[in-house]
Amino acid sequence: MKPLQNDSVIPLYHQLKERLKQSIDNGLWKNGDQIPSENQLMNEYKVSRNTAKKAIEELVQEGLLYRIQGKGTFVTKPKLEQSLMGLYSFSKVFKEKGMEPKDIILEVREILPSQEIMKELQLTKNEKVIEMRRLRCVDDEPVILESSFFSKEIVLDLNVLQRVGKTSLYDLLEQEFNVFVTKAKEAFEPVLIRQDESEYLQTEAGKPALLLERTAYGTNGQPVEFCRSIIRGDRCRFYTELT
Amino acid sequence: MKPLQNDSVIPLYHQLKERLKQSIDNGLWKNGDQIPSENQLMNEYKVSRNTAKKAIEELVQEGLLYRIQGKGTFVTKPKLEQSLMGLYSFSKVFKEKGMEPKDIILEVREILPSQEIMKELQLTKNEKVIEMRRLRCVDDEPVILESSFFSKEIVLDLNVLQRVGKTSLYDLLEQEFNVFVTKAKEAFEPVLIRQDESEYLQTEAGKPALLLERTAYGTNGQPVEFCRSIIRGDRCRFYTELT
Repeated sequence: MKPLQNDSVIPLYHQLKERLKQSIDNGLWKNGDQIPSENQLMNEYKVSRNTAKKAIEELVQEGLLYRIQGKGTFVTKPKLEQSLMGLYSFSKVFKEKGMEPKDIILEVREILPSQEIMKELQLTKNEKVIEMRRLRCVDDEPVILESSFFSKEIVLDLNVLQRVGKTSLYDLLEQEFNVFVTKAKEAFEPVLIRQDESEYLQTEAGKPALLLERTAYGTNGQPVEFCRSIIRGDRCRFYTELT
Repeated sequence: MKPLQNDSVIPLYHQLKERLKQSIDNGLWKNGDQIPSENQLMNEYKVSRNTAKKAIEELVQEGLLYRIQGKGTFVTKPKLEQSLMGLYSFSKVFKEKGMEPKDIILEVREILPSQEIMKELQLTKNEKVIEMRRLRCVDDEPVILESSFFSKEIVLDLNVLQRVGKTSLYDLLEQEFNVFVTKAKEAFEPVLIRQDESEYLQTEAGKPALLLERTAYGTNGQPVEFCRSIIRGDRCRFYTELT
């Protein structure tokens, strides 16, 4: 490896920064890879701690690297982008992008619904509903923590939901219960990740997330699912086109 | 006023809670109004501090009331809802809802653009662009802190932008520069409000906000504006319908 030039007008930290950038650009370091520590960079490039620190610091500020307290410095992964220009399924979208989505079913149970769930599912009496909680991962990284609620008139057998992940939820609803989701209403709000959520999402409490509330409707306009998702803000962004 | 019933099976705090709810429901206390203090409720309803505390606490948890540290307890205002189902103007949407939007122009200046601004405005050389920073208020409450960027080939005279607020930005671009915005691309991410932003938005640093990035395009498809908005998460939510 060509050494850095001590006699150059370009400061050493800047030369080091360019070398680190090259390692990212040429694919030597991939998204999510841990980069060498300050000590390793000091040895490898014969620079002072301040020089190594400053090079890393600027790349963190530029968003190319990120730090995890007590773990090290990593190459930033690009955010997962989700279009709002049509009815979508996370699992299908991620698969189309060549990524590997995986759902972990945390719980399937009957609960008494809150006022909001009753309203969204258009329930008239306070009868129990089915809740399915799942952790949605992409390439083995957890990105979405999700609770779906269904009327027992839609999901006739809650055990079927244990198969979500192998088959997509909406495909299962079609195959098992003859229910076809044809449109959805979604609302977005920014929130902070709570302690209990952070443990599933393997991130820190207090980090920004998107709270996405979806109500999905069937062919005859009846509500099929009400769903509340906590989506990691450091991993996802949504976009749309308006005319 | 009918006193609370000490001999009822319904706990006093619950009776008090229902009374407070009534004051909200019947419009005696309006959105944003400060409610009486614990001491005032203790005197008025002849209850203990614990009873007053518990009644308020539950209403805060249910989202009907919110506390401001060192100031008191207030009636929650409903969030401003913005549809993503077509090109919109905040000022026009708020006016249609009977609210009073007001823009405070913080700064209009020339700056050297970042890589992202250059890309979004499709600038080929690193020439200066015009930045307009504004604080957008609704009914005298600041809700959005926004920076818009324009090529100098679009905004030929930056002084015109000082009139934004009296006239909407897009109306001004039409009248003064014959530029018509016909579509936009928007992207959403959750972020935390920074210290410098919190001072403008009159909220606390670290609270959740939505970062909205919009690129607006003219009739011939050329980019007209790139805009970055920090939107208070406690005041706004976005919704759309997907088919």
